[in-house]
Amino acid sequence: MAIHYRRIADYLRHALAGRGMEQLARLQPDHGPAPQRVPGGSALTADVIAARWALPNLPASARDVIADEAALREREAYAHNIEHFIGTARVPVGLAGPLRVNGAHALGDYYVPLATTEAALVASYSRGALLITEAGGCSCAVLNEGVTRAPGFAFETLGDAVAFVAWASMSFAAFKAVAAETTKYGELVDMQLTVEGNHVHAQFEFMTGDAAGQNMVTIATEAICHYVIDQSPVHPRYWFVEANMSGDKKATTHSFMTVRGKKVSAEVTVPATLIETRLHTTARGMADYARMSVLGGVMSGSIGVHGHYANGLAALFIACGQDAACVAEATVGVTRFEELDDGALYAAVTLPNLIVGTVGGGTHLPTQKACLDILGLSGPGHARAFAEVAASLALAGELSIIGALTAGHFTRAHQRLARGTPASPRST
Amino acid sequence: MAIHYRRIADYLRHALAGRGMEQLARLQPDHGPAPQRVPGGSALTADVIAARWALPNLPASARDVIADEAALREREAYAHNIEHFIGTARVPVGLAGPLRVNGAHALGDYYVPLATTEAALVASYSRGALLITEAGGCSCAVLNEGVTRAPGFAFETLGDAVAFVAWASMSFAAFKAVAAETTKYGELVDMQLTVEGNHVHAQFEFMTGDAAGQNMVTIATEAICHYVIDQSPVHPRYWFVEANMSGDKKATTHSFMTVRGKKVSAEVTVPATLIETRLHTTARGMADYARMSVLGGVMSGSIGVHGHYANGLAALFIACGQDAACVAEATVGVTRFEELDDGALYAAVTLPNLIVGTVGGGTHLPTQKACLDILGLSGPGHARAFAEVAASLALAGELSIIGALTAGHFTRAHQRLARGTPASPRST
Amino acid sequence: MAIHYRRIADYLRHALAGRGMEQLARLQPDHGPAPQRVPGGSALTADVIAARWALPNLPASARDVIADEAALREREAYAHNIEHFIGTARVPVGLAGPLRVNGAHALGDYYVPLATTEAALVASYSRGALLITEAGGCSCAVLNEGVTRAPGFAFETLGDAVAFVAWASMSFAAFKAVAAETTKYGELVDMQLTVEGNHVHAQFEFMTGDAAGQNMVTIATEAICHYVIDQSPVHPRYWFVEANMSGDKKATTHSFMTVRGKKVSAEVTVPATLIETRLHTTARGMADYARMSVLGGVMSGSIGVHGHYANGLAALFIACGQDAACVAEATVGVTRFEELDDGALYAAVTLPNLIVGTVGGGTHLPTQKACLDILGLSGPGHARAFAEVAASLALAGELSIIGALTAGHFTRAHQRLARGTPASPRST
Amino acid sequence: MAIHYRRIADYLRHALAGRGMEQLARLQPDHGPAPQRVPGGSALTADVIAARWALPNLPASARDVIADEAALREREAYAHNIEHFIGTARVPVGLAGPLRVNGAHALGDYYVPLATTEAALVASYSRGALLITEAGGCSCAVLNEGVTRAPGFAFETLGDAVAFVAWASMSFAAFKAVAAETTKYGELVDMQLTVEGNHVHAQFEFMTGDAAGQNMVTIATEAICHYVIDQSPVHPRYWFVEANMSGDKKATTHSFMTVRGKKVSAEVTVPATLIETRLHTTARGMADYARMSVLGGVMSGSIGVHGHYANGLAALFIACGQDAACVAEATVGVTRFEELDDGALYAAVTLPNLIVGTVGGGTHLPTQKACLDILGLSGPGHARAFAEVAASLALAGELSIIGALTAGHFTRAHQRLARGTPASPRST
Repeated sequence: MAIHYRRIADYLRHALAGRGMEQLARLQPDHGPAPQRVPGGSALTADVIAARWALPNLPASARDVIADEAALREREAYAHNIEHFIGTARVPVGLAGPLRVNGAHALGDYYVPLATTEAALVASYSRGALLITEAGGCSCAVLNEGVTRAPGFAFETLGDAVAFVAWASMSFAAFKAVAAETTKYGELVDMQLTVEGNHVHAQFEFMTGDAAGQNMVTIATEAICHYVIDQSPVHPRYWFVEANMSGDKKATTHSFMTVRGKKVSAEVTVPATLIETRLHTTARGMADYARMSVLGGVMSGSIGVHGHYANGLAALFIACGQDAACVAEATVGVTRFEELDDGALYAAVTLPNLIVGTVGGGTHLPTQKACLDILGLSGPGHARAFAEVAASLALAGELSIIGALTAGHFTRAHQRLARGTPASPRST
Repeated sequence: MAIHYRRIADYLRHALAGRGMEQLARLQPDHGPAPQRVPGGSALTADVIAARWALPNLPASARDVIADEAALREREAYAHNIEHFIGTARVPVGLAGPLRVNGAHALGDYYVPLATTEAALVASYSRGALLITEAGGCSCAVLNEGVTRAPGFAFETLGDAVAFVAWASMSFAAFKAVAAETTKYGELVDMQLTVEGNHVHAQFEFMTGDAAGQNMVTIATEAICHYVIDQSPVHPRYWFVEANMSGDKKATTHSFMTVRGKKVSAEVTVPATLIETRLHTTARGMADYARMSVLGGVMSGSIGVHGHYANGLAALFIACGQDAACVAEATVGVTRFEELDDGALYAAVTLPNLIVGTVGGGTHLPTQKACLDILGLSGPGHARAFAEVAASLALAGELSIIGALTAGHFTRAHQRLARGTPASPRST
Repeated sequence: MAIHYRRIADYLRHALAGRGMEQLARLQPDHGPAPQRVPGGSALTADVIAARWALPNLPASARDVIADEAALREREAYAHNIEHFIGTARVPVGLAGPLRVNGAHALGDYYVPLATTEAALVASYSRGALLITEAGGCSCAVLNEGVTRAPGFAFETLGDAVAFVAWASMSFAAFKAVAAETTKYGELVDMQLTVEGNHVHAQFEFMTGDAAGQNMVTIATEAICHYVIDQSPVHPRYWFVEANMSGDKKATTHSFMTVRGKKVSAEVTVPATLIETRLHTTARGMADYARMSVLGGVMSGSIGVHGHYANGLAALFIACGQDAACVAEATVGVTRFEELDDGALYAAVTLPNLIVGTVGGGTHLPTQKACLDILGLSGPGHARAFAEVAASLALAGELSIIGALTAGHFTRAHQRLARGTPASPRST
Repeated sequence: MAIHYRRIADYLRHALAGRGMEQLARLQPDHGPAPQRVPGGSALTADVIAARWALPNLPASARDVIADEAALREREAYAHNIEHFIGTARVPVGLAGPLRVNGAHALGDYYVPLATTEAALVASYSRGALLITEAGGCSCAVLNEGVTRAPGFAFETLGDAVAFVAWASMSFAAFKAVAAETTKYGELVDMQLTVEGNHVHAQFEFMTGDAAGQNMVTIATEAICHYVIDQSPVHPRYWFVEANMSGDKKATTHSFMTVRGKKVSAEVTVPATLIETRLHTTARGMADYARMSVLGGVMSGSIGVHGHYANGLAALFIACGQDAACVAEATVGVTRFEELDDGALYAAVTLPNLIVGTVGGGTHLPTQKACLDILGLSGPGHARAFAEVAASLALAGELSIIGALTAGHFTRAHQRLARGTPASPRST
């Protein structure tokens, strides 16, 4: 977050809107009367929506597009997914594929719906998906799963913290039973305990079925905490249901090193001829890129090393009703490229934090369910297959971008598509 | 990414879909014929869209909601933002606020449009926004800005790498001129060079005006690279326009420690009485939480330490046409809470990687522009104000969630809103 | 590792010894004849030592002090600890203390021998030790232990990797038995398996008794690997006994998050009067420091957050025959300071990577054993107590330096002692 | 730092010395009388030393070896390097080499003195050094240098923090002048400023000549801080001369990404025949190892990626009077191995945090100066050459260990040397 002192003049020009230090006078509390609150809570009646649009300074032109007829017609669909509803944002959806996945759960050729506003994204992922498909598809498997909640307990002394940990370690079965009363889909499967002086951090790990499960694990963990407060022989001075060791909504090394949601690996071997005809480069060149860029990642301090998982995953998450905030944590992992003796390319991605679901959250909303239906993965029984498709999509994206960077085409694709030049055959 | 050996049985049950090792036979290439490609590239005619929906296994029910009349009507709006277009995904939008911002660029009371499918999110951010507003608003300033592209050059020897660096360091003005020919909004403002054996990684940093600017900096950097290849007295064996030191689409310590997009700090002092009446807790309790959770963050290996920036930022980005993939990098920073002598709470957030814009990308699309219009921040001249609103929103979210965790209300809010219990006055 | 382009001129001046680019001509292979090898391997006879000193350009003056009479007399003591022996380096030893430890294993008042060449170090740790002692001593406990070796196995496919992991997870008992045949002190206690594409990384965790144990775990792991190669139903293409996931000789987030050697917490509560009379500051001031410096650590990207564990631990390790290279990994952890309601200070340190022993390595050498004897902790049965003393020493150092930084005395202590001004009463 | 709940029973057995929870009763303050303080401060008279040995429970046997005649004779040499002196610790020294360095500053064949108690270490580094020498030596250059001190300033508001930063950015010349008054060798060369809410962290970077320079930069920074307090138009509520952003005595990503001490790269190309005859493996095998182990490092969360820099550097630092605590920060960097087309191996190391000196600290002590004299690098004018030798040594160690791991010899070397089996020709 540091700034070089020679840049401060620039910084002041921008930070202070070019008006010099007097601009700083604006950075003061203003105790004048506040405007009206947003009325109606989670209510969705036409009247309440209209009242919201009557708030000061909301332009009518915005209302026309956000609260259009379609949005108002389907508004009841959003009853349990939003508060202060004023309409819908519309994000264009493109299809990437076909993407052949030979997975433990996902099997077949998928057209993957991606919701994005970024030019060239769908074209690039589609190019990678086709390459995988022509190579016979990618092998893929969910390797682990779990979602963590991490309460913290503050005791008087280290001795009390140790005594608590001793008790808690013998109470796992009881915690499991307490958790089970709060959810029929979630299951407490593991527990880690960290003593830091007189503090104890617990990490409760749950299986969450076909749901992403963050609310489920919060509710279950709160129940466990209340059991702890009732039953523990040593009482904490204070406690919190989450003390920031769960990796919720952020990239953390802890989640990267264990699992958050689903961990999935996907691999493909692409023959030399395909590399040449489709990507216009060689496995050697791509391996050279990989070697340099892995160290580039290391020298930039990334968590894991990869190219751009976020592009595909954000678009997939928005299309399919996943929690888009989880892009923060889902987009870590490891990409590995190797040149094989016959000039083929071995490529693998491993994403340990795919926090996804096919039930709950936004998965039942109109267009979100439709996107899952395009994949054939809506509803119970499909979360693992969806995670495998997500990892396969990430693999497609890595192949395409690293191919483009190696062949020197990276910039041109963006330039052309973002500026509207007609597509050449190759990139679609 | 490791799995405890005792968990492997679970893992196999899930990874292999409960069918044992024979399931692994599925993880093999399938060289059968591939299905049809997605037709039409970036074309948007009704015929092409219909041809896409005629691809195998795309359900008609999905077409009805995704390619509804409204989507088809406005399809031309998406011409330069998507390929393989099949319709739109609709995400409900709620208003959080009013949020009073006393910033160097943003000034006034904002109703912030958030597009999310997660229950309780808008309510929680709205609660925090109101708290800030009642406290007189938050002070806020853009502190730095810049967007990086990071090419890599491979030489024969360390000696060549050093010679190249010597030349490059004296060529900054020329690089700046070359970059200037590719863009009227972007400006090369800084350069870092890293020698790693016979490799050199460059980090070119640009100002990008009111655009997020990732394409702009790629095009400018490619031009610089071509100049390098033409002019450098030492020639690289090979080079790439990006070798993974830019932090593009991922959380990195490098971007956290410098800037990516805009760096913004926002602060507020909340009097004890407001903490008590609005959050039902105390500054002492919140400071206790902060102390424990900062170390929780440290022990989970997060980049920076904060609560849940991603919730608000992902929703804001989707609503306002930002690149949702940048949630990966934007959601790092530092939250600090202190109890003051009079029982008030000092709270500050600093987000160094707010890669946002008010022109370019998805900002001109129908609903996205409408959301920016609600903020009064659409188009040129508003990117810094938008970044300040984003940071202020993050501060609102931290206050609300940490208040809820400290008061013990965190779980209940989620439980109630996600399950549809009528809202109580307090949370709205 | 990056350099700002404006600094390149400086860099060239220094990198190239001020002689400009022609200096780069030196960076070329020189295939001239090599001088003589160092004779005699691990032999320690007087003749062999003399032959080593007869190598080209070794100054007689160096021989006089390094191969002095004392060194030659005790040379046989070093027979299994060094190769190419030429004498001894002598490091001055000072005593810090008394340090009162109320630990699960260490109990009593310790005078801690520290071998260092850094002025003010012993004085500073001694000041902290006295403060702890006057406060009634610190509470302390070993909380976990284990040493990891991490082989890697490369398979043909992800399917093979999964099949291997399934087999390995059921072979833990066999691995344990194989390991047990190689060591009577070591015990395989845990195993983690990481699938990354067609690679599998294993982390074998051992208890190592009173030895630091790195060689023990390497030998045991190699035996396990050979068993794997013999018995696994799936054969790796190649494998390595260590593939860099063990955290050996380096600070890693993985070791920080689990354990490497011993994990120990130590805490003390220091009354307000002692803070004032001994440190000339207040608990409030020290807590202010802690809050700012924890974020300073976060913003500098440290693993854990603390002040300067390395100062005390390096000196303790050298004095007591520990592996000084392990300073790299041992010096991570978490320091926490809190002001209590009565103005007292609560301080705790937690060090999860104290890789120490009281048998094996250098612990039996003359002065090294003597230093352990000063602590009463030489030989079997004392490793955990030694680890508790090490953590308590780290706590002493944190109290002293943070006290000095808060009181504004930090610089003066170093200035005075390093420049030979007579000591004032306070700092000793 | 977390512990799996199933391991808690083990943990309790060990943590509580096998005596169950009642052992926790020991973790309580003991307010009994404290034993005597260590007398005499930094005095070195025979009487004072004797008084120290008369402290309770110091064994006479320890005194005999630590305070031997030689130690007492040279005790005055340690007058400004230790307090509470009681004698010397003796660490055996072995020679690694010859090591041919073709550096910008170091040029020639070096026998490198290493002080260590770890068997096989000198033999392994010597093997790598010989390999480099037979390959024509390694190319090497200092690439950057600087040592940072990082004070922190707490203001009332963000506005004040911004105003301060504006002033400070224009005061660099004044700060430089203030610093120059405190030191004739040190020079303030750069400054970074970080605003985090109402806090400002400064990073002052100095050139320190031939000294490691930590005390020099502390004294200079304190002077700057006093100037700040006198002159700044905005006054901090409180400030600290170091707020934990300097990376002093700890591995940090910030220092890794910039420089701390000297940054040095060293590279060598080893022909296929040498790889085969000396390391009994192939460049292909070593490149396979490198690819897997780089990802192993990434998955373990190391800062940079390398094998075991700490082994050689700790031994070199102890021998040559460097600050051994700096092993914590010096042992980060990047190792890269590539197979070339002709079967040769390209190997490079880059270490950005070599905080070393040839004057000051322990460099003038008897054996420490003698070790520097063996290298011909004692006293002014040699710090950069010493840093280049250190990096070359690190390269030697990487070649040797990765060769051994690839050839499958790693374990055997340790087994044989640590247990006293006669050396085979190959390993020396």
